[in-house]
Amino acid sequence: MTRLSSGNIDLDKRLQGGFPEGECVLITGEPGTGKTIFGIQFLYNACQEGKKCVIIATEEVPEKIILHGKALGFDLEPFVETNQLTMIHFLELRANNLAEGYTNVCMHIDDLNNLAHIIQDDVDVIILDNLGTFSIGIDLKQFRDKLDTLAYVLSNQKRTSLIVMDATAHELTHRIAEYSTYGTIRLMTKENPYTGKMERFMYIPKMRGTKISLDIINYDITEEGIKLFPAKANR
Amino acid sequence: MTRLSSGNIDLDKRLQGGFPEGECVLITGEPGTGKTIFGIQFLYNACQEGKKCVIIATEEVPEKIILHGKALGFDLEPFVETNQLTMIHFLELRANNLAEGYTNVCMHIDDLNNLAHIIQDDVDVIILDNLGTFSIGIDLKQFRDKLDTLAYVLSNQKRTSLIVMDATAHELTHRIAEYSTYGTIRLMTKENPYTGKMERFMYIPKMRGTKISLDIINYDITEEGIKLFPAKANR
Amino acid sequence: MTRLSSGNIDLDKRLQGGFPEGECVLITGEPGTGKTIFGIQFLYNACQEGKKCVIIATEEVPEKIILHGKALGFDLEPFVETNQLTMIHFLELRANNLAEGYTNVCMHIDDLNNLAHIIQDDVDVIILDNLGTFSIGIDLKQFRDKLDTLAYVLSNQKRTSLIVMDATAHELTHRIAEYSTYGTIRLMTKENPYTGKMERFMYIPKMRGTKISLDIINYDITEEGIKLFPAKANR
Amino acid sequence: MTRLSSGNIDLDKRLQGGFPEGECVLITGEPGTGKTIFGIQFLYNACQEGKKCVIIATEEVPEKIILHGKALGFDLEPFVETNQLTMIHFLELRANNLAEGYTNVCMHIDDLNNLAHIIQDDVDVIILDNLGTFSIGIDLKQFRDKLDTLAYVLSNQKRTSLIVMDATAHELTHRIAEYSTYGTIRLMTKENPYTGKMERFMYIPKMRGTKISLDIINYDITEEGIKLFPAKANR
Amino acid sequence: MTRLSSGNIDLDKRLQGGFPEGECVLITGEPGTGKTIFGIQFLYNACQEGKKCVIIATEEVPEKIILHGKALGFDLEPFVETNQLTMIHFLELRANNLAEGYTNVCMHIDDLNNLAHIIQDDVDVIILDNLGTFSIGIDLKQFRDKLDTLAYVLSNQKRTSLIVMDATAHELTHRIAEYSTYGTIRLMTKENPYTGKMERFMYIPKMRGTKISLDIINYDITEEGIKLFPAKANR
Amino acid sequence: MTRLSSGNIDLDKRLQGGFPEGECVLITGEPGTGKTIFGIQFLYNACQEGKKCVIIATEEVPEKIILHGKALGFDLEPFVETNQLTMIHFLELRANNLAEGYTNVCMHIDDLNNLAHIIQDDVDVIILDNLGTFSIGIDLKQFRDKLDTLAYVLSNQKRTSLIVMDATAHELTHRIAEYSTYGTIRLMTKENPYTGKMERFMYIPKMRGTKISLDIINYDITEEGIKLFPAKANR
Repeated sequence: MTRLSSGNIDLDKRLQGGFPEGECVLITGEPGTGKTIFGIQFLYNACQEGKKCVIIATEEVPEKIILHGKALGFDLEPFVETNQLTMIHFLELRANNLAEGYTNVCMHIDDLNNLAHIIQDDVDVIILDNLGTFSIGIDLKQFRDKLDTLAYVLSNQKRTSLIVMDATAHELTHRIAEYSTYGTIRLMTKENPYTGKMERFMYIPKMRGTKISLDIINYDITEEGIKLFPAKANR
Repeated sequence: MTRLSSGNIDLDKRLQGGFPEGECVLITGEPGTGKTIFGIQFLYNACQEGKKCVIIATEEVPEKIILHGKALGFDLEPFVETNQLTMIHFLELRANNLAEGYTNVCMHIDDLNNLAHIIQDDVDVIILDNLGTFSIGIDLKQFRDKLDTLAYVLSNQKRTSLIVMDATAHELTHRIAEYSTYGTIRLMTKENPYTGKMERFMYIPKMRGTKISLDIINYDITEEGIKLFPAKANR
Repeated sequence: MTRLSSGNIDLDKRLQGGFPEGECVLITGEPGTGKTIFGIQFLYNACQEGKKCVIIATEEVPEKIILHGKALGFDLEPFVETNQLTMIHFLELRANNLAEGYTNVCMHIDDLNNLAHIIQDDVDVIILDNLGTFSIGIDLKQFRDKLDTLAYVLSNQKRTSLIVMDATAHELTHRIAEYSTYGTIRLMTKENPYTGKMERFMYIPKMRGTKISLDIINYDITEEGIKLFPAKANR
Repeated sequence: MTRLSSGNIDLDKRLQGGFPEGECVLITGEPGTGKTIFGIQFLYNACQEGKKCVIIATEEVPEKIILHGKALGFDLEPFVETNQLTMIHFLELRANNLAEGYTNVCMHIDDLNNLAHIIQDDVDVIILDNLGTFSIGIDLKQFRDKLDTLAYVLSNQKRTSLIVMDATAHELTHRIAEYSTYGTIRLMTKENPYTGKMERFMYIPKMRGTKISLDIINYDITEEGIKLFPAKANR
Repeated sequence: MTRLSSGNIDLDKRLQGGFPEGECVLITGEPGTGKTIFGIQFLYNACQEGKKCVIIATEEVPEKIILHGKALGFDLEPFVETNQLTMIHFLELRANNLAEGYTNVCMHIDDLNNLAHIIQDDVDVIILDNLGTFSIGIDLKQFRDKLDTLAYVLSNQKRTSLIVMDATAHELTHRIAEYSTYGTIRLMTKENPYTGKMERFMYIPKMRGTKISLDIINYDITEEGIKLFPAKANR
Repeated sequence: MTRLSSGNIDLDKRLQGGFPEGECVLITGEPGTGKTIFGIQFLYNACQEGKKCVIIATEEVPEKIILHGKALGFDLEPFVETNQLTMIHFLELRANNLAEGYTNVCMHIDDLNNLAHIIQDDVDVIILDNLGTFSIGIDLKQFRDKLDTLAYVLSNQKRTSLIVMDATAHELTHRIAEYSTYGTIRLMTKENPYTGKMERFMYIPKMRGTKISLDIINYDITEEGIKLFPAKANR
């Protein structure tokens, strides 16, 4: 199986080289667990490897994401300028709709499926940050059917995709998204029983075609992005 | 009682030879517990024993299941070519329906009952992966009535069936599916109290006509499929 | 108070001789706790004592119950042949209704009350396996009113009845059925704190007119049916 | 404050002589905690003291209550014969209504309020067993308003009343009934932390105008009715 | 900030002199925690200090409150006779409405707001026992808007008010009432970890403009009313 | 990144200088955790630094907030007089609407979005106390869409905003507000495991562009406002 680097060497080692190419991986986490940074690192690396990329950002404007990346040493701007990276202005769409008084013109997961169909044929990598926006307010059966379909279409088109989902929406949908994707990574903040302090942990319950460890991995958000602690420091 | 091997020698030993022939067994689990691999091993073995088999895959395309099997050393392709194994393209049906704009053409459990009736008379073994798709969005009474009926029809037709169900759907239906089937196997990931690490466990609460142990069995997903750890290593 | 043996000597000792004659006892349990076996043992014994019996089986066909009994050494077939034991084909009724497309022709608890009225006058013992089928999808007040009525009618007619109910339905109805019956037995699987292993336990919270112990009783499902462990082995 | 013996000397000691006369006391408990026996003992004692009594039994027929009492040494029959004790056939009313096909003719709490008004003026003591029947299926506000009213009316008429309520209905109504009554006694079965065994306990969170201990009191159901264990044996 | 004694010297010490004058304090508790006694003590003291007072009692008739107070040594009767204390017969209003067949004429929180407006201008102190009656059966947003308004109006009119609320209604409204009031006192019964016995505790999470301790305070209901245990005896 | 002091030196040190300028920070807490005091301190400091400020107070009248601040040594009055600080009378609007009988004229989150648009262009700092008022009674999807939009508009206009939200509303909306804001601070009261006493703690799960510690910080509400305990005293 071909792999695409996650943009994080330590994580790649735990994934037999990176994310499975042409498949869909879900990453979930609470506020402050660095979900967006994971996305930026993956995106930056994919751009560097010459992949054509798209990011659909539902909670942040592209300018902020670029600033966020620059501060961590991942400058996405050159890729945007050469059109290797396309940023879809989803938050602005949502805000403008509301501002104009269309109180019910919230984006639906259908829009997401449509997006999957209109994305240019040569796009290799898709980042969606965050799926949670699409999951609230529709019934669970619809959400599952549509997410299964989205994952099916994307995988069929051989796009490697990283779907970010906030933990609240993930819990409200009973963690059902994890069944639709090829792999899933959970980010969490919890007390380290050895140090008695709150720390960040990553857990990978599922990555098809990949020999994964079920160990809970301690990580930190540093000024150069996500850093995994070596295995010994982990439980 | 005649037995049909589960495709896993160690599990067979714990089931007095395998799954009860002509009966319906439920297997449930969270993402990454290897539910589909259990299905592939059982299917591969049944094909090898000359049984006529059908797999209804609601979350994966047949090609992926075949790839998945090959990677683990269970090549299903020859059986497909000789029509000994039929793969029903359920995921594609679901996706196409949605793509064409039929937003409510999700598959219902009724379709499943119909399937049970149209499957060819000479089919011995049926794998359904996964029942969860059919259980969300209908009321509990209907789900139970229809699953009881499905299990009754399949058993009446002397088909040995393995029904895979994701843990989320299983919990949402209050684990009620376990009353409808002849036996049930639960797969789970939890902390091993002796090692302090996350590990995979299997628990068999029910297998009619079979002397089973209630011990929780430690297992792993290896490159040759599911391996049960010997009893001593278990609690 | 006259007693009717439960078909299990050890249980009888704990019930001052057996179930109170002419009264209604509830038995609840999760999948694999042997609820149906309890019913078969009681039924077999009642038939042997010359009682006229009826079993209403909602989840299994009569043939399977007979096979199940034979495997454990309780052959019900001769009693069926002499009409001492009547088996009501409830599962088939449910399945046929569904198969013919009557999607809403599920059995209701009203049917149960009607049954109570049409059962032949000379029937002494009634087994219902399982009440859960009747409790889902109706509101709690109705369920309680109708179960109170059923228990009242059966007790009025001096029938000894054993009502089996699955734990899921029992929990969903907030264990309310226990107030309507004369006695109640709960079967469960849980970790034995002394052995650290999953084991089966029986708990009798209520048996009117009977001096009962509140001890939790360890039992096993053996090849000769249910066996209670002696009191010392219990906590 | 005048007291009316609870029919149990040990309990009376803990209540400064018994239940407050002319007031309403609630007693709640799970199946098998002896709620009805508490009622019988209180009733028997009140009859002996020459009080005119009424019992409204919603789950048992009067004959059974009399049998139940006799077995414990509290023979209510003579009081019934002299009309000192009136037994209202509520269960039969409920059952007959259902049997005649009036599927919605369940008793409502309104009927209870009407009862309070039509009970003969010279009745001193009222036992209602059990209030749970009236609380399910109406909204919480109505239940509270009506129970407040019932308690108000009964107290206004200087009747001493004991209201039995099953724990399920009590929990489903969020224990709200405890605010409407003058006092409340909770019966429960739980593990005794010292013996490791399931035992019965009584807890009195509230008894207005009475200096009560908040100690949890161990009791047993013996062949002579409820017996409280001496304080030392309690925690 | 001017203070008005709570009627309990020990509590006053913990509140820098008493309740903040002209503000609204909430007191919540389970059955038997002495909520009404707290109200009586506060009322008695306020009357003694010459304040003009009103009590709105929704669960008890004024006569009972007076008896209750007398038994504890707080005789409110003289103040009623001189019209310094007005008792509003709310329970009787509720009961009469129901008795006359107006099944839906329950009091609403709107009535409460109206009351706030019609109370005589010279009233200094208002006790409402209990707010719970007004909170069930309306939606949370309404409850919050109206309680905010009530607290605003009362504070605007410089009335010192004590609002009693039962713990059940408080939990059902998600403890939201605590945000609307100036201060809040929670009464509870729980196991004292040092003595292993059930005891009564008071906790003051909030009292604006007051330096409060977050210590949980042990108290008892004695024959002279509420007594706080000295700080050392507390945890 | 430019920082704006939180008005608390110790907190500023933990935030690399203060709140990120031009961004939106959420602060949540239970009653009595000092949410409003946090707001007052921040507001007072921003006024001192010459920022033009607006406070939207939904639960308290401006006069009380000024009194509250004065008592703690943060006199906001001079800034109000010079129009550097504008106080929007939201509570009075709510109360008047209700008083006039417009029972459904509660403020909606739409009003909040409108406010964002009509606030004068030269306003630098906005405090909203509290968002909870706007979150109850609308569905979760709407709340999220509108809060995302509000945060987007405010950030777009380069306003630094502090949004106070009560813990009850925060929990009822599944903590979803934390995903919409740039940073979030949680205030809580809990038992300190080392002292066994209830104490106040602050936790900062998220502050974009800021290296934060996940340590739980012990703090107190003193007569000079919020004081953080030095790190050693913290766990």
